[in-house]
Amino acid sequence: METVSRALSHGGVQGVYRHQAETTRCPMTFAVYLPPQAADGPVPVLWYLSGLTCTHANVMDKGEYRRAAARHGVAFVAPDTSPRGPGVPDDPDDWKFGCGAGFYLDATQAPYAEHYRMWSYVSEELPALVAKNFPVDMTRQGILGHSMGGHGALTLALTYPERYRSCSAFAPIVQPSTAGWSAPAFARYLGEDRAAWRAHDATALIEDGRRFPEFLVDQGMADSFLEDGLRPHLLEEACAKAGIPLTLNRREGYDHSYFFISTFMDDHIAWAAERLKA
Amino acid sequence: METVSRALSHGGVQGVYRHQAETTRCPMTFAVYLPPQAADGPVPVLWYLSGLTCTHANVMDKGEYRRAAARHGVAFVAPDTSPRGPGVPDDPDDWKFGCGAGFYLDATQAPYAEHYRMWSYVSEELPALVAKNFPVDMTRQGILGHSMGGHGALTLALTYPERYRSCSAFAPIVQPSTAGWSAPAFARYLGEDRAAWRAHDATALIEDGRRFPEFLVDQGMADSFLEDGLRPHLLEEACAKAGIPLTLNRREGYDHSYFFISTFMDDHIAWAAERLKA
Repeated sequence: METVSRALSHGGVQGVYRHQAETTRCPMTFAVYLPPQAADGPVPVLWYLSGLTCTHANVMDKGEYRRAAARHGVAFVAPDTSPRGPGVPDDPDDWKFGCGAGFYLDATQAPYAEHYRMWSYVSEELPALVAKNFPVDMTRQGILGHSMGGHGALTLALTYPERYRSCSAFAPIVQPSTAGWSAPAFARYLGEDRAAWRAHDATALIEDGRRFPEFLVDQGMADSFLEDGLRPHLLEEACAKAGIPLTLNRREGYDHSYFFISTFMDDHIAWAAERLKA
Repeated sequence: METVSRALSHGGVQGVYRHQAETTRCPMTFAVYLPPQAADGPVPVLWYLSGLTCTHANVMDKGEYRRAAARHGVAFVAPDTSPRGPGVPDDPDDWKFGCGAGFYLDATQAPYAEHYRMWSYVSEELPALVAKNFPVDMTRQGILGHSMGGHGALTLALTYPERYRSCSAFAPIVQPSTAGWSAPAFARYLGEDRAAWRAHDATALIEDGRRFPEFLVDQGMADSFLEDGLRPHLLEEACAKAGIPLTLNRREGYDHSYFFISTFMDDHIAWAAERLKA
Protein backbone atom coordinates (compact mmCIF):
# COMPACT_ATOMS: atom_id res chain seq x y z
CA MET A 1 0.00 0.00 0.00
CA GLU A 2 1.36 3.36 -1.04
CA THR A 3 0.59 6.70 0.61
CA VAL A 4 -0.47 9.22 -2.01
CA SER A 5 -1.03 12.15 0.36
CA ARG A 6 -1.69 12.97 3.99
CA ALA A 7 -2.94 16.21 5.49
CA LEU A 8 -4.04 17.24 8.95
CA SER A 9 -7.69 18.30 8.96
CA HIS A 10 -10.14 18.96 11.79
CA GLY A 11 -7.56 17.51 14.15
CA GLY A 12 -7.31 14.18 12.32
CA VAL A 13 -5.50 12.94 9.25
CA GLN A 14 -7.01 12.87 5.77
CA GLY A 15 -5.02 10.39 3.75
CA VAL A 16 -5.16 9.03 0.23
CA TYR A 17 -3.70 5.60 -0.46
CA ARG A 18 -3.17 3.33 -3.43
CA HIS A 19 -2.67 -0.41 -3.75
CA GLN A 20 -2.64 -3.13 -6.38
CA ALA A 21 -5.97 -4.87 -5.86
CA GLU A 22 -6.23 -8.60 -6.37
CA THR A 23 -9.98 -8.56 -6.85
CA THR A 24 -10.16 -5.84 -9.52
CA ARG A 25 -6.69 -6.59 -10.91
CA CYS A 26 -5.70 -2.93 -11.13
CA PRO A 27 -4.35 -0.20 -8.85
CA MET A 28 -7.12 1.15 -6.62
CA THR A 29 -7.07 4.50 -4.82
CA PHE A 30 -9.03 5.19 -1.64
CA ALA A 31 -9.31 7.86 1.04
CA VAL A 32 -9.17 7.32 4.80
CA TYR A 33 -9.88 9.98 7.39
CA LEU A 34 -8.66 9.10 10.85
CA PRO A 35 -10.11 11.23 13.64
CA PRO A 36 -7.86 12.52 16.42
CA GLN A 37 -9.14 9.76 18.72
CA ALA A 38 -7.34 7.21 16.52
CA ALA A 39 -4.08 8.30 18.17
CA ASP A 40 -5.32 6.65 21.37
CA GLY A 41 -6.49 3.34 19.93
CA PRO A 42 -8.83 1.72 17.42
CA VAL A 43 -11.86 3.74 16.34
CA PRO A 44 -15.10 2.65 14.66
CA VAL A 45 -15.12 2.84 10.88
CA LEU A 46 -17.68 4.29 8.50
CA TRP A 47 -17.62 3.14 4.88
CA TYR A 48 -18.84 5.67 2.34
CA LEU A 49 -19.70 4.46 -1.16
CA SER A 50 -19.89 7.13 -3.86
CA GLY A 51 -22.19 7.56 -6.81
CA LEU A 52 -21.84 7.34 -10.57
CA THR A 53 -18.83 9.13 -12.12
CA CYS A 54 -17.16 9.63 -8.72
CA THR A 55 -13.77 8.61 -7.39
CA HIS A 56 -12.63 8.61 -3.76
CA ALA A 57 -12.05 12.35 -4.14
CA ASN A 58 -15.58 13.71 -4.54
CA VAL A 59 -16.71 13.10 -0.99
CA MET A 60 -13.24 13.87 0.32
CA ASP A 61 -13.39 17.31 -1.26
CA LYS A 62 -17.08 18.15 -0.98
CA GLY A 63 -18.62 15.86 1.62
CA GLU A 64 -17.90 17.98 4.72
CA TYR A 65 -17.60 14.87 6.89
CA ARG A 66 -14.38 15.55 8.76
CA ARG A 67 -15.74 17.90 11.41
CA ALA A 68 -18.40 15.40 12.48
CA ALA A 69 -16.11 12.38 12.13
CA ALA A 70 -13.59 14.11 14.40
CA ARG A 71 -16.25 15.06 16.91
CA HIS A 72 -17.63 11.53 17.11
CA GLY A 73 -14.32 9.76 16.75
CA VAL A 74 -15.07 7.63 13.70
CA ALA A 75 -12.83 6.79 10.75
CA PHE A 76 -14.31 7.51 7.33
CA VAL A 77 -13.21 5.43 4.34
CA ALA A 78 -14.10 6.28 0.74
CA PRO A 79 -13.23 3.76 -2.00
CA ASP A 80 -13.33 4.38 -5.73
CA THR A 81 -16.47 3.39 -7.65
CA SER A 82 -14.92 1.01 -10.19
CA PRO A 83 -11.68 -0.45 -11.48
CA ARG A 84 -9.75 1.94 -13.70
CA GLY A 85 -6.73 2.11 -15.94
CA PRO A 86 -5.17 0.51 -18.97
CA GLY A 87 -6.69 -2.88 -19.70
CA VAL A 88 -9.94 -2.16 -17.86
CA PRO A 89 -12.78 -2.31 -20.39
CA ASP A 90 -14.81 0.87 -20.42
CA ASP A 91 -17.54 2.63 -22.32
CA PRO A 92 -16.40 6.25 -22.31
CA ASP A 93 -19.60 7.45 -23.93
CA ASP A 94 -21.80 6.05 -21.16
CA TRP A 95 -21.41 7.61 -17.71
CA LYS A 96 -23.73 4.95 -16.29
CA PHE A 97 -21.48 2.02 -17.21
CA GLY A 98 -17.85 1.03 -16.94
CA CYS A 99 -15.30 3.24 -15.22
CA GLY A 100 -17.00 5.25 -12.47
CA ALA A 101 -19.98 2.93 -12.58
CA GLY A 102 -19.05 -0.38 -10.99
CA PHE A 103 -22.41 -0.69 -9.16
CA TYR A 104 -20.74 -2.56 -6.30
CA LEU A 105 -21.24 -5.98 -7.86
CA ASP A 106 -19.03 -8.74 -9.26
CA ALA A 107 -19.53 -8.93 -13.01
CA THR A 108 -20.00 -12.38 -14.45
CA GLN A 109 -20.00 -11.45 -18.14
CA ALA A 110 -17.04 -11.06 -20.50
CA PRO A 111 -15.15 -8.82 -20.85
CA TYR A 112 -16.15 -7.25 -17.53
CA ALA A 113 -15.79 -10.21 -15.17
CA GLU A 114 -12.03 -9.92 -14.98
CA HIS A 115 -11.87 -6.43 -13.41
CA TYR A 116 -15.37 -5.36 -12.39
CA ARG A 117 -15.44 -7.04 -9.01
CA MET A 118 -16.36 -4.13 -6.76
CA TRP A 119 -18.52 -6.30 -4.49
CA SER A 120 -15.53 -8.42 -3.53
CA TYR A 121 -13.37 -5.33 -3.37
CA VAL A 122 -15.52 -3.29 -0.97
CA SER A 123 -16.78 -6.25 1.07
CA GLU A 124 -13.56 -8.24 1.43
CA GLU A 125 -10.31 -6.94 0.03
CA LEU A 126 -10.45 -3.32 1.11
CA PRO A 127 -11.77 -4.08 4.62
CA ALA A 128 -8.91 -6.52 5.13
CA LEU A 129 -6.39 -3.95 3.92
CA VAL A 130 -7.84 -1.19 6.09
CA ALA A 131 -8.01 -3.44 9.15
CA LYS A 132 -4.36 -4.33 8.67
CA ASN A 133 -3.03 -0.83 8.10
CA PHE A 134 -5.15 1.54 10.20
CA PRO A 135 -6.23 1.69 13.86
CA VAL A 136 -9.86 0.72 13.27
CA ASP A 137 -12.15 -1.47 15.33
CA MET A 138 -13.68 -3.85 12.81
CA THR A 139 -16.31 -4.95 15.32
CA ARG A 140 -17.81 -1.48 14.93
CA GLN A 141 -18.49 -0.78 11.26
CA GLY A 142 -21.16 1.32 9.63
CA ILE A 143 -21.86 2.01 5.98
CA LEU A 144 -23.44 4.81 4.00
CA GLY A 145 -23.47 6.00 0.43
CA HIS A 146 -24.89 8.29 -2.21
CA SER A 147 -27.00 7.32 -5.23
CA MET A 148 -25.27 4.28 -6.75
CA GLY A 149 -23.31 4.20 -3.50
CA GLY A 150 -26.56 4.26 -1.55
CA HIS A 151 -27.51 1.16 -3.49
CA GLY A 152 -24.15 -0.33 -2.55
CA ALA A 153 -24.58 0.52 1.14
CA LEU A 154 -28.09 -0.93 1.32
CA THR A 155 -27.20 -4.16 -0.47
CA LEU A 156 -24.06 -4.70 1.60
CA ALA A 157 -25.93 -4.08 4.86
CA LEU A 158 -28.74 -6.45 3.84
CA THR A 159 -26.24 -9.11 2.83
CA TYR A 160 -23.97 -8.76 5.88
CA PRO A 161 -26.27 -7.52 8.66
CA GLU A 162 -23.96 -9.02 11.29
CA ARG A 163 -21.07 -6.90 10.05
CA TYR A 164 -22.56 -3.41 9.96
CA ARG A 165 -24.13 -1.70 12.93
CA SER A 166 -25.56 1.15 10.85
CA CYS A 167 -26.61 1.82 7.29
CA SER A 168 -27.79 5.07 5.76
CA ALA A 169 -28.01 6.63 2.32
CA PHE A 170 -28.34 9.89 0.45
CA ALA A 171 -30.65 9.58 -2.55
CA PRO A 172 -30.02 5.84 -3.06
CA ILE A 173 -30.96 3.83 -6.13
CA VAL A 174 -33.29 1.55 -4.20
CA GLN A 175 -34.35 -0.76 -7.01
CA PRO A 176 -31.55 -0.74 -9.59
CA SER A 177 -32.79 -3.86 -11.39
CA THR A 178 -35.71 -1.89 -12.82
CA ALA A 179 -34.30 1.66 -12.98
CA GLY A 180 -33.53 3.09 -16.39
CA TRP A 181 -30.07 4.24 -15.49
CA SER A 182 -28.93 0.96 -13.91
CA ALA A 183 -30.80 -1.96 -15.54
CA PRO A 184 -28.74 -1.74 -18.78
CA ALA A 185 -25.53 -1.90 -16.72
CA PHE A 186 -26.84 -4.90 -14.78
CA ALA A 187 -27.51 -6.68 -18.07
CA ARG A 188 -23.98 -6.06 -19.29
CA TYR A 189 -22.30 -6.97 -15.99
CA LEU A 190 -24.54 -9.86 -14.89
CA GLY A 191 -26.17 -11.16 -18.06
CA GLU A 192 -29.81 -11.37 -19.01
CA ASP A 193 -30.93 -13.75 -16.27
CA ARG A 194 -32.67 -11.33 -13.95
CA ALA A 195 -32.72 -13.81 -11.08
CA ALA A 196 -29.03 -13.06 -10.62
CA TRP A 197 -29.77 -9.35 -10.33
CA ARG A 198 -31.80 -9.71 -7.16
CA ALA A 199 -28.70 -10.09 -4.97
CA HIS A 200 -27.80 -6.54 -5.99
CA ASP A 201 -31.15 -4.86 -5.54
CA ALA A 202 -32.11 -3.63 -2.06
CA THR A 203 -35.85 -4.02 -2.50
CA ALA A 204 -35.46 -7.50 -4.00
CA LEU A 205 -33.19 -8.54 -1.14
CA ILE A 206 -35.84 -7.44 1.34
CA GLU A 207 -38.54 -9.28 -0.63
CA ASP A 208 -36.34 -12.36 -0.58
CA GLY A 209 -36.14 -12.25 3.20
CA ARG A 210 -33.01 -10.26 3.99
CA ARG A 211 -33.30 -7.94 6.97
CA PHE A 212 -31.42 -5.08 8.62
CA PRO A 213 -32.34 -3.42 11.92
CA GLU A 214 -33.11 0.03 10.49
CA PHE A 215 -32.23 2.46 7.71
CA LEU A 216 -31.84 6.22 7.46
CA VAL A 217 -32.38 7.80 4.04
CA ASP A 218 -32.32 11.45 3.00
CA GLN A 219 -33.76 12.30 -0.39
CA GLY A 220 -33.90 15.72 -2.04
CA MET A 221 -37.26 16.47 -3.62
CA ALA A 222 -35.69 18.65 -6.35
CA ASP A 223 -33.45 15.75 -7.36
CA SER A 224 -33.68 15.41 -11.14
CA PHE A 225 -33.21 11.63 -10.87
CA LEU A 226 -35.99 11.17 -8.32
CA GLU A 227 -38.66 9.50 -10.43
CA ASP A 228 -36.62 7.62 -12.99
CA GLY A 229 -33.68 6.36 -11.02
CA LEU A 230 -34.18 6.67 -7.28
CA ARG A 231 -37.86 6.11 -6.40
CA PRO A 232 -37.57 6.10 -2.60
CA HIS A 233 -41.20 5.03 -2.27
CA LEU A 234 -40.17 1.55 -3.44
CA LEU A 235 -37.86 1.18 -0.45
CA GLU A 236 -40.53 2.64 1.78
CA GLU A 237 -43.00 0.01 0.58
CA ALA A 238 -40.54 -2.87 0.89
CA CYS A 239 -39.48 -1.83 4.40
CA ALA A 240 -43.10 -1.37 5.50
CA LYS A 241 -44.02 -4.86 4.30
CA ALA A 242 -40.96 -6.38 5.93
CA GLY A 243 -41.27 -4.46 9.18
CA ILE A 244 -37.88 -2.76 8.78
CA PRO A 245 -37.87 0.67 10.43
CA LEU A 246 -36.98 3.29 7.80
CA THR A 247 -36.42 6.96 8.51
CA LEU A 248 -36.98 8.55 5.11
CA ASN A 249 -36.47 12.30 5.14
CA ARG A 250 -37.88 13.97 2.05
CA ARG A 251 -36.00 17.26 1.77
CA GLU A 252 -37.88 19.92 -0.14
CA GLY A 253 -35.78 21.88 -2.63
CA TYR A 254 -32.62 19.79 -2.42
CA ASP A 255 -31.02 18.30 -5.53
CA HIS A 256 -28.69 15.32 -6.11
CA SER A 257 -25.40 17.15 -5.55
CA TYR A 258 -22.87 17.37 -2.77
CA PHE A 259 -24.53 20.66 -1.80
CA PHE A 260 -27.34 18.35 -0.61
CA ILE A 261 -25.14 15.57 0.79
CA SER A 262 -22.96 17.94 2.80
CA THR A 263 -26.04 19.53 4.34
CA PHE A 264 -27.13 16.28 5.95
CA MET A 265 -23.74 14.60 6.43
CA ASP A 266 -23.62 15.70 10.08
CA ASP A 267 -26.94 13.95 10.73
CA HIS A 268 -25.81 10.72 9.10
CA ILE A 269 -22.51 10.62 10.96
CA ALA A 270 -24.20 11.37 14.28
CA TRP A 271 -26.80 8.67 13.58
CA ALA A 272 -24.08 6.15 12.74
CA ALA A 273 -21.89 7.15 15.67
CA GLU A 274 -24.75 6.53 18.08
CA ARG A 275 -24.94 2.94 16.79
CA LEU A 276 -21.17 2.47 16.71
CA LYS A 277 -20.64 3.20 20.39
CA ALA A 278 -18.57 0.62 22.22
CA MET B 1 -25.73 39.03 -14.85
CA GLU B 2 -26.35 35.41 -15.74
CA THR B 3 -27.14 32.59 -13.32
CA VAL B 4 -24.84 29.64 -13.95
CA SER B 5 -26.22 27.38 -11.24
CA ARG B 6 -28.19 27.43 -8.00
CA ALA B 7 -28.52 24.72 -5.38
CA LEU B 8 -30.04 24.56 -1.94
CA SER B 9 -27.41 23.84 0.71
CA HIS B 10 -27.51 24.02 4.49
CA GLY B 11 -30.87 25.74 4.19
CA GLY B 12 -29.61 28.56 1.96
CA VAL B 13 -28.81 28.93 -1.72
CA GLN B 14 -25.37 28.38 -3.24
CA GLY B 15 -25.33 30.18 -6.55
CA VAL B 16 -22.79 30.73 -9.29
CA TYR B 17 -23.13 33.80 -11.51
CA ARG B 18 -21.38 35.30 -14.50
CA HIS B 19 -21.24 38.82 -15.88
CA GLN B 20 -19.30 40.87 -18.38
CA ALA B 21 -17.00 42.96 -16.20
CA GLU B 22 -16.14 46.50 -17.20
CA THR B 23 -13.02 46.64 -15.07
CA THR B 24 -11.36 43.45 -16.29
CA ARG B 25 -12.98 43.56 -19.74
CA CYS B 26 -13.90 39.89 -19.74
CA PRO B 27 -16.62 37.62 -18.39
CA MET B 28 -16.15 37.04 -14.67
CA THR B 29 -17.65 34.18 -12.66
CA PHE B 30 -18.33 34.37 -8.94
CA ALA B 31 -20.11 32.39 -6.22
CA VAL B 32 -22.64 33.73 -3.73
CA TYR B 33 -24.04 31.76 -0.81
CA LEU B 34 -27.16 33.29 0.67
CA PRO B 35 -28.08 31.95 4.11
CA PRO B 36 -31.70 31.11 4.91
CA GLN B 37 -32.03 34.41 6.81
CA ALA B 38 -31.73 36.27 3.48
CA ALA B 39 -35.32 35.28 2.76
CA ASP B 40 -36.37 37.69 5.52
CA GLY B 41 -34.27 40.69 4.53
CA PRO B 42 -30.74 41.91 3.91
CA VAL B 43 -27.92 39.97 5.58
CA PRO B 44 -24.29 40.92 6.24
CA VAL B 45 -21.81 39.91 3.58
CA LEU B 46 -18.44 38.21 3.87
CA TRP B 47 -16.01 38.51 0.96
CA TYR B 48 -13.66 35.61 0.49
CA LEU B 49 -10.60 36.07 -1.72
CA SER B 50 -8.90 32.92 -2.96
CA GLY B 51 -5.28 32.04 -3.48
CA LEU B 52 -3.04 31.38 -6.46
CA THR B 53 -4.44 29.06 -9.16
CA CYS B 54 -7.97 29.17 -7.71
CA THR B 55 -11.29 30.19 -9.21
CA HIS B 56 -14.54 30.90 -7.35
CA ALA B 57 -15.03 27.11 -7.18
CA ASN B 58 -12.24 26.00 -4.84
CA VAL B 59 -13.67 27.48 -1.67
CA MET B 60 -17.20 26.73 -2.83
CA ASP B 61 -16.33 23.04 -3.12
CA LYS B 62 -13.83 22.60 -0.31
CA GLY B 63 -14.21 25.53 2.08
CA GLU B 64 -16.96 24.06 4.31
CA TYR B 65 -18.34 27.55 4.98
CA ARG B 66 -22.05 27.04 4.36
CA ARG B 67 -22.99 25.45 7.67
CA ALA B 68 -21.47 28.33 9.66
CA ALA B 69 -22.71 30.99 7.23
CA ALA B 70 -26.23 29.60 7.58
CA ARG B 71 -25.97 29.46 11.36
CA HIS B 72 -24.76 33.05 11.63
CA GLY B 73 -26.87 34.43 8.79
CA VAL B 74 -24.12 35.88 6.63
CA ALA B 75 -23.78 35.86 2.85
CA PHE B 76 -20.49 34.53 1.51
CA VAL B 77 -19.16 35.80 -1.82
CA ALA B 78 -16.20 34.27 -3.64
CA PRO B 79 -14.82 36.04 -6.75
CA ASP B 80 -12.35 34.61 -9.22
CA THR B 81 -8.65 35.41 -8.76
CA SER B 82 -7.94 37.04 -12.13
CA PRO B 83 -9.40 37.89 -15.51
CA ARG B 84 -9.59 34.93 -17.86
CA GLY B 85 -10.39 34.02 -21.41
CA PRO B 86 -9.43 34.77 -24.99
CA GLY B 87 -7.54 38.02 -25.24
CA VAL B 88 -6.36 38.01 -21.64
CA PRO B 89 -2.56 37.83 -21.63
CA ASP B 90 -1.29 34.91 -19.60
CA ASP B 91 1.86 32.99 -18.79
CA PRO B 92 0.69 29.38 -18.73
CA ASP B 93 4.06 28.12 -17.53
CA ASP B 94 3.99 30.30 -14.39
CA TRP B 95 1.30 29.49 -11.82
CA LYS B 96 2.32 32.60 -9.87
CA PHE B 97 1.51 35.04 -12.66
CA GLY B 98 -1.32 35.76 -15.07
CA CYS B 99 -4.55 33.79 -15.02
CA GLY B 100 -5.25 32.59 -11.50
CA ALA B 101 -2.74 35.07 -10.10
CA GLY B 102 -4.21 38.55 -10.30
CA PHE B 103 -2.86 39.54 -6.85
CA TYR B 104 -5.84 41.85 -6.28
CA LEU B 105 -4.14 44.86 -7.83
CA ASP B 106 -4.64 47.07 -10.89
CA ALA B 107 -1.79 46.45 -13.32
CA THR B 108 -0.18 49.53 -14.81
CA GLN B 109 2.15 47.82 -17.27
CA ALA B 110 1.45 46.67 -20.83
CA PRO B 111 0.07 44.25 -21.84
CA TYR B 112 -1.49 43.55 -18.43
CA ALA B 113 -3.06 46.91 -17.62
CA GLU B 114 -6.04 46.36 -19.90
CA HIS B 115 -7.47 43.30 -18.11
CA TYR B 116 -5.62 42.78 -14.84
CA ARG B 117 -7.65 45.14 -12.71
CA MET B 118 -8.68 42.89 -9.85
CA TRP B 119 -8.37 45.70 -7.28
CA SER B 120 -11.06 47.70 -9.02
CA TYR B 121 -13.05 44.56 -9.64
CA VAL B 122 -13.19 43.30 -6.05
CA SER B 123 -13.32 46.71 -4.40
CA GLU B 124 -15.80 48.47 -6.71
CA GLU B 125 -17.44 46.63 -9.58
CA LEU B 126 -18.36 43.35 -7.90
CA PRO B 127 -19.62 44.96 -4.66
CA ALA B 128 -21.89 47.22 -6.71
CA LEU B 129 -23.20 44.25 -8.67
CA VAL B 130 -23.77 42.17 -5.56
CA ALA B 131 -25.46 45.05 -3.74
CA LYS B 132 -27.80 45.49 -6.68
CA ASN B 133 -28.73 41.84 -7.18
CA PHE B 134 -28.70 40.21 -3.75
CA PRO B 135 -30.32 40.94 -0.37
CA VAL B 136 -27.13 42.07 1.37
CA ASP B 137 -26.60 44.84 3.90
CA MET B 138 -23.60 46.73 2.56
CA THR B 139 -23.18 48.56 5.86
CA ARG B 140 -22.10 45.22 7.32
CA GLN B 141 -19.22 43.80 5.28
CA GLY B 142 -16.34 41.63 6.32
CA ILE B 143 -13.46 40.21 4.30
CA LEU B 144 -11.22 37.18 4.53
CA GLY B 145 -8.95 35.23 2.25
CA HIS B 146 -6.35 32.56 1.77
CA SER B 147 -2.70 32.99 0.78
CA MET B 148 -2.73 35.48 -2.14
CA GLY B 149 -6.34 36.14 -1.10
CA GLY B 150 -5.20 36.76 2.46
CA HIS B 151 -2.94 39.42 1.00
CA GLY B 152 -5.96 40.80 -0.85
CA ALA B 153 -8.13 40.82 2.27
CA LEU B 154 -5.48 42.55 4.40
CA THR B 155 -4.71 45.23 1.81
CA LEU B 156 -8.39 45.95 1.11
CA ALA B 157 -9.15 46.22 4.82
CA LEU B 158 -6.19 48.53 5.43
CA THR B 159 -7.17 50.70 2.46
CA TYR B 160 -10.89 50.84 3.24
CA PRO B 161 -11.12 50.41 7.03
CA GLU B 162 -14.44 52.25 7.07
CA ARG B 163 -15.98 49.67 4.77
CA TYR B 164 -15.09 46.40 6.45
CA ARG B 165 -16.01 45.50 10.00
CA SER B 166 -13.83 42.42 10.06
CA CYS B 167 -10.76 41.07 8.32
CA SER B 168 -9.13 37.70 8.72
CA ALA B 169 -6.86 35.44 6.73
CA PHE B 170 -5.66 31.90 6.32
CA ALA B 171 -1.92 31.71 5.60
CA PRO B 172 -1.73 35.17 4.01
CA ILE B 173 1.16 36.53 1.97
CA VAL B 174 1.82 39.36 4.39
CA GLN B 175 4.67 41.08 2.55
CA PRO B 176 4.26 40.26 -1.14
CA SER B 177 6.63 42.99 -2.32
CA THR B 178 9.58 41.02 -0.99
CA ALA B 179 8.33 37.42 -1.24
CA GLY B 180 9.88 35.22 -3.89
CA TRP B 181 6.61 33.99 -5.27
CA SER B 182 5.00 37.44 -5.61
CA ALA B 183 7.71 40.06 -6.21
CA PRO B 184 8.27 38.96 -9.84
CA ALA B 185 4.55 39.31 -10.51
CA PHE B 186 4.51 42.75 -8.90
CA ALA B 187 7.31 43.83 -11.24
CA ARG B 188 5.43 42.68 -14.31
CA TYR B 189 2.07 44.11 -13.21
CA LEU B 190 3.26 47.35 -11.59
CA GLY B 191 6.67 48.08 -13.08
CA GLU B 192 10.03 48.38 -11.42
CA ASP B 193 9.26 51.41 -9.23
CA ARG B 194 8.84 49.70 -5.90
CA ALA B 195 7.21 52.74 -4.32
CA ALA B 196 4.08 51.80 -6.28
CA TRP B 197 4.13 48.31 -4.77
CA ARG B 198 3.60 49.54 -1.21
CA ALA B 199 -0.11 50.14 -1.76
CA HIS B 200 -0.42 46.37 -2.29
CA ASP B 201 1.64 45.13 0.60
CA ALA B 202 -0.03 44.77 4.01
CA THR B 203 3.10 45.37 6.06
CA ALA B 204 4.07 48.39 3.95
CA LEU B 205 0.57 49.84 4.29
CA ILE B 206 0.85 49.53 8.08
CA GLU B 207 4.32 51.11 8.03
CA ASP B 208 2.89 53.92 5.94
CA GLY B 209 0.24 54.66 8.54
CA ARG B 210 -2.78 52.63 7.50
CA ARG B 211 -4.73 51.04 10.35
CA PHE B 212 -7.44 48.48 10.93
CA PRO B 213 -9.06 47.67 14.28
CA GLU B 214 -7.84 44.05 14.51
CA PHE B 215 -6.88 41.03 12.46
CA LEU B 216 -7.33 37.29 12.86
CA VAL B 217 -4.81 35.04 11.09
CA ASP B 218 -4.47 31.25 11.11
CA GLN B 219 -1.23 29.80 9.82
CA GLY B 220 -0.34 26.13 9.45
CA MET B 221 3.15 25.33 10.70
CA ALA B 222 3.59 22.49 8.18
CA ASP B 223 2.82 24.90 5.33
CA SER B 224 5.50 24.40 2.70
CA PHE B 225 5.31 28.08 1.75
CA LEU B 226 5.74 29.33 5.31
CA GLU B 227 9.26 30.72 5.19
CA ASP B 228 9.58 31.81 1.59
CA GLY B 229 6.19 33.23 0.79
CA LEU B 230 4.08 33.80 3.87
CA ARG B 231 6.29 34.86 6.81
CA PRO B 232 3.59 35.66 9.35
CA HIS B 233 6.16 37.08 11.74
CA LEU B 234 6.48 40.12 9.45
CA LEU B 235 2.81 40.93 10.00
CA GLU B 236 3.22 40.24 13.69
CA GLU B 237 6.08 42.75 13.88
CA ALA B 238 4.27 45.39 11.83
CA CYS B 239 1.10 45.07 13.91
CA ALA B 240 3.04 45.17 17.17
CA LYS B 241 4.81 48.38 16.15
CA ALA B 242 1.57 49.97 14.98
CA GLY B 243 -0.50 48.82 17.94
CA ILE B 244 -2.91 46.79 15.80
CA PRO B 245 -4.29 43.82 17.74
CA LEU B 246 -3.45 40.64 15.84
CA THR B 247 -4.65 37.18 16.80
CA LEU B 248 -2.13 34.94 15.06
CA ASN B 249 -2.84 31.25 15.57
CA ARG B 250 0.10 29.07 14.64
CA ARG B 251 -1.41 25.65 13.94
CA GLU B 252 1.02 22.78 14.38
CA GLY B 253 0.93 20.16 11.64
CA TYR B 254 -1.40 21.97 9.24
CA ASP B 255 -0.42 22.61 5.65
CA HIS B 256 -1.53 25.17 3.02
CA SER B 257 -4.51 23.26 1.66
CA TYR B 258 -8.26 23.44 2.04
CA PHE B 259 -7.93 20.60 4.56
CA PHE B 260 -6.40 23.34 6.75
CA ILE B 261 -8.75 26.15 5.70
CA SER B 262 -11.90 24.12 6.24
CA THR B 263 -10.73 23.16 9.73
CA PHE B 264 -10.71 26.77 10.89
CA MET B 265 -13.42 28.23 8.63
CA ASP B 266 -16.00 27.96 11.42
CA ASP B 267 -13.80 30.07 13.69
CA HIS B 268 -13.30 32.76 11.05
CA ILE B 269 -16.98 33.00 10.21
CA ALA B 270 -17.97 33.14 13.88
CA TRP B 271 -15.34 35.82 14.49
CA ALA B 272 -16.60 37.86 11.56
CA ALA B 273 -20.26 37.34 12.44
CA GLU B 274 -19.65 38.72 15.91
CA ARG B 275 -18.35 41.93 14.31
CA LEU B 276 -21.09 42.06 11.68
CA LYS B 277 -23.96 42.12 14.12
CA ALA B 278 -26.51 44.86 13.52
